[in-house]
Amino acid sequence: ISYAGPEADAPHQGSSSRIECEGRAVIPGFVDAHTHLVFAGDRSDEFARRLMGVPYTGGGILSTVAATRAASEDDLFRQSAERIRRMLAAGTTTLEVKTGYGLDLATEKKLLRVAHRLAEELQVTIKTTFLGAHTFPEEFLSDRDSYLDLIVDEMLPALAPEADFCDVFVEEGAFSLDQGRRILQTAIDLGMPARVHAEQLSHSGGALLAAELGAMSADHLDWATIDDADALAAAGVCGVLTPGASYSLRHPQAPGKMLLDRGVTIALATDCNPGTSYFESMGLVISLACVLMDLTVEQAVYAATRGGAIALGLDDHGLIRTGAPGDLVILDAPSETHLAYRPATNLAWKTIQGGSLVTG
Amino acid sequence: ISYAGPEADAPHQGSSSRIECEGRAVIPGFVDAHTHLVFAGDRSDEFARRLMGVPYTGGGILSTVAATRAASEDDLFRQSAERIRRMLAAGTTTLEVKTGYGLDLATEKKLLRVAHRLAEELQVTIKTTFLGAHTFPEEFLSDRDSYLDLIVDEMLPALAPEADFCDVFVEEGAFSLDQGRRILQTAIDLGMPARVHAEQLSHSGGALLAAELGAMSADHLDWATIDDADALAAAGVCGVLTPGASYSLRHPQAPGKMLLDRGVTIALATDCNPGTSYFESMGLVISLACVLMDLTVEQAVYAATRGGAIALGLDDHGLIRTGAPGDLVILDAPSETHLAYRPATNLAWKTIQGGSLVTG
Repeated sequence: ISYAGPEADAPHQGSSSRIECEGRAVIPGFVDAHTHLVFAGDRSDEFARRLMGVPYTGGGILSTVAATRAASEDDLFRQSAERIRRMLAAGTTTLEVKTGYGLDLATEKKLLRVAHRLAEELQVTIKTTFLGAHTFPEEFLSDRDSYLDLIVDEMLPALAPEADFCDVFVEEGAFSLDQGRRILQTAIDLGMPARVHAEQLSHSGGALLAAELGAMSADHLDWATIDDADALAAAGVCGVLTPGASYSLRHPQAPGKMLLDRGVTIALATDCNPGTSYFESMGLVISLACVLMDLTVEQAVYAATRGGAIALGLDDHGLIRTGAPGDLVILDAPSETHLAYRPATNLAWKTIQGGSLVTG
Repeated sequence: ISYAGPEADAPHQGSSSRIECEGRAVIPGFVDAHTHLVFAGDRSDEFARRLMGVPYTGGGILSTVAATRAASEDDLFRQSAERIRRMLAAGTTTLEVKTGYGLDLATEKKLLRVAHRLAEELQVTIKTTFLGAHTFPEEFLSDRDSYLDLIVDEMLPALAPEADFCDVFVEEGAFSLDQGRRILQTAIDLGMPARVHAEQLSHSGGALLAAELGAMSADHLDWATIDDADALAAAGVCGVLTPGASYSLRHPQAPGKMLLDRGVTIALATDCNPGTSYFESMGLVISLACVLMDLTVEQAVYAATRGGAIALGLDDHGLIRTGAPGDLVILDAPSETHLAYRPATNLAWKTIQGGSLVTG
């Protein structure tokens, strides 16, 4: 962005093309700071069973692991690229992609290669997160310590050069606090900042672990307490909230307003994944955050743009100001309030990424 | 539809074009049985104020009345056509359009002319409903009886040939049961079947009135009781539920499951309007009905197709069978479960109306 401000003060224009917005609102491109979008398989049946009352415990992840291990790299790329194209068409210009559907070194590597190829071939900024500690793979269910060793001794050293961050799902049935601490401390020592899946299905202590380790973010936070919020705020850890997952799981929403009141910087994210939140649009995420989580539109839109950038350590993203990347969404609406007001319509009229028109 | 059934039994194909669905699900086009989509003006500020805690009482309708009276017929047509094009692109092939933003004879007539022009110029089936009894117009606020007389003595006789149905908003602050009965009985005598806005903001008795009058539908029903349900079921009145409105108003959802259990035929509708439900896609309505209202996907999809057709008295719509109109949606998904599972994405890959491709 070479200039942002009143038209009267704008410097002389060069030969660049002009888009007449005709009263439409322009906001920063959405920064979706939590996705698991490289996956194969379909879990709509599991979703339908949940509608009938079957509770979610995280176990379905292994069915995605099986499908993802079986899928060819090209097929994973093709499916993921379709998802990203739909996200771009809905205004997302930057996103995070987690691994965690491989759970062996070869497949986790494959997922990172797919993520890097997506970043190269599509007009989108991608940050990658290694989530080998998503759940325990089938072959280690009776020998969990060995999987911990595999992550710490082999996967992390091999993948530290490939992934921007390391994440752990701290939850009963997934990883304990001690296991999470061991993995994340190793990652930090290898130069990978930490993220934590924290307090999603129960209050498991992940938020305090994130604060203790100075993580980039504590994500989900559906069951976060005031003490968690105070620790996150004091440690400068961003809270990444995922209203689509809470909606799809039919859980209470995270206490977004409380977190803001206690001084936590929050981001909103789709959590795009085939089990608990098959969301590809930040527009509906913003609406859910306003209607079900009690944020104002201004808070939600900030969290979906600048908040996401802060969660990903992208200092110059999620802003419209001189020097920022040219990542913009022109809404087919007179104000950003319409994102919450008209949740059933994709309002991204044009998406601009890195100064170039992507869709619209 | 000249044939629906197993491919092996299909009669010899003529020269018609072929669409390869490649595993995609095909469902009937959505029938959206409750909309107020011909309007002018913007009430996103009112929505934002509600997010801050200002309660909804129906009063905002008058701001839409002022904007709609002031708008030219061409402008209303243009704005409404844009809405319908987005609805078609999201899989709706039949919809109901209510008046009620005119509240004087000339403007109510204008709204019906716009609705008829939309049906002529766009590839969509439209049924029209006269809703002069949406609220009391500004100029009659201190003389409500005279507005009743105007509806009964002038508007209904003049508009009976122009509108398919007559509707009344029975609610404190809008129309009483006695006022509603007088208007709807007059309409029925003029050959216009009745619909009732019932039990939306409070339990006001509209459902029992709908049953008493043998109305086509009782709409909203957020506060409906078991007695209401039994009366609707006994009278064969369809319950038209509007989860988008309950969501946007942050009210509890209508008791959809209870209504079904008591034998009421239900329909799902967007209630597309600028105040309480600026929804243009039945996909998100279906998702809300499953996730927040506790319907199964099968119940919700039936209600959004065949249920809507029943509510509008369209005996052959909302079905895929030999002899039905060729109104279909091909979903970019392997099953209709994805409509609830992926609420943030428009899954209408192609919409076919009257046998012709509309979008996709």
